[in-house]
Amino acid sequence: MNVNTAFLLQRRTIRKYKSEDVADDLLNDIINEGCRTSTTGNMQVYSIIVTRDSQIREQLLPLHFNQPMVTEAPVVLTFCADFNRFNKWCVLNDAKPGYDNFLSFMTAAIDALLVAQTICISAEARGLGICYLGTTTYMAHKIIEVLRLPLGVVPVTTVTLGWPAVYPEQPDRLPAGAIVHREVYTEYTDQQIRDYYSAKEAREDSAQFVRENNKTTLAQVFTNVRYKKEDNVYFSGILLQVLKDQGFMNQ
Amino acid sequence: MNVNTAFLLQRRTIRKYKSEDVADDLLNDIINEGCRTSTTGNMQVYSIIVTRDSQIREQLLPLHFNQPMVTEAPVVLTFCADFNRFNKWCVLNDAKPGYDNFLSFMTAAIDALLVAQTICISAEARGLGICYLGTTTYMAHKIIEVLRLPLGVVPVTTVTLGWPAVYPEQPDRLPAGAIVHREVYTEYTDQQIRDYYSAKEAREDSAQFVRENNKTTLAQVFTNVRYKKEDNVYFSGILLQVLKDQGFMNQ
Repeated sequence: MNVNTAFLLQRRTIRKYKSEDVADDLLNDIINEGCRTSTTGNMQVYSIIVTRDSQIREQLLPLHFNQPMVTEAPVVLTFCADFNRFNKWCVLNDAKPGYDNFLSFMTAAIDALLVAQTICISAEARGLGICYLGTTTYMAHKIIEVLRLPLGVVPVTTVTLGWPAVYPEQPDRLPAGAIVHREVYTEYTDQQIRDYYSAKEAREDSAQFVRENNKTTLAQVFTNVRYKKEDNVYFSGILLQVLKDQGFMNQ
Repeated sequence: MNVNTAFLLQRRTIRKYKSEDVADDLLNDIINEGCRTSTTGNMQVYSIIVTRDSQIREQLLPLHFNQPMVTEAPVVLTFCADFNRFNKWCVLNDAKPGYDNFLSFMTAAIDALLVAQTICISAEARGLGICYLGTTTYMAHKIIEVLRLPLGVVPVTTVTLGWPAVYPEQPDRLPAGAIVHREVYTEYTDQQIRDYYSAKEAREDSAQFVRENNKTTLAQVFTNVRYKKEDNVYFSGILLQVLKDQGFMNQ
């Protein structure tokens, strides 16, 4: 068979979309391909919320820190870890579900994330553009309210989907050698770390990032501006509370 | 461009592999495509352990509950949430990393899982077969020992990879209507649950499953045999301890 996957190498995240809609039939084809993704025990413990309604997307907008794609893309897909449907099926069939624990949350989150990525690849293969919103795990508690997610359901990622209006430059990536370990994990030497990140640091956009934020190193832009400890700690507390509230911490 | 993605609809998990190897060049091409996957803030906080050595795979085998693919497939890929590399880079650049918390674990796990799925799709597009091993989150503590994963690194999923020897029947899937919610989540009625799962229950392999396990419903095979509460609770405790030990619960 051998399908040409070169588009995977050329891809980039799309943040500017045409006003053109994504037809329902097209979206259904993409979702059907997504639903063939492997899931643990074929339990399919995930759900996909397809949000097109502009009023609901307006409500989601601040929860995604006002990233404009939420209202500018025609479709927002929220991928949820979902044991609710499976639990209901168990109860209707004289079976007592035991999925109100952290392992089960991870099982369901893995299902949801693998399906999300198949859907993104299927969409990109059709010329559509996607953007992942990492804000989902920060603001899960509020997304749960807007999307009316019941017990047993937690949003784990969100994808905006539409026809690309602007193709940005491809961002940098670390060399594969930085990511891949042979046989077992090999701890990095300081010199390896410097080498692996040197191209990233040398980029003009990185230098600009450092200047704009009045920092001396690129790493400080991450630790002091973009992904700060105090925020991470704060949102960790909220996310763990979400898992409790949604019924995944009863072990 | 429009790449034909029909193979995504036809795919199935492969558990029997030919003895033929997966060439390093081919695997590198696949991994390079994987590394173009979106990651939070382009931090790429994941690692991939490529294990071919048969002695190391023999050590992994019991940790994956003796699923024979671990030693029969030529390649085992362990996908890890990994903040170790990024943290080291921060420290070398006068930046204080704040990623020793649960939110950061989720960020890194999401990175690792999305990349894993791109790699699986890239492999399948080339005619290779894959099998996900959900046992990774159960036995993370032991996998950490065998693969020598340092602080800041947690394995989240494992994939066996090779040339298919046997193509099994495609398993059932719920109708997409069971998975997809329009605009917001719509709670299921009992009748909907019965309808969505009826085809699954009617299959001969499901009936056989019920008979073999001396149960009265298919759901009981899941709750009482395959994914039992007591196991889930036990492994939840271990997994939370792993997150603590690997430095992700310091909030």
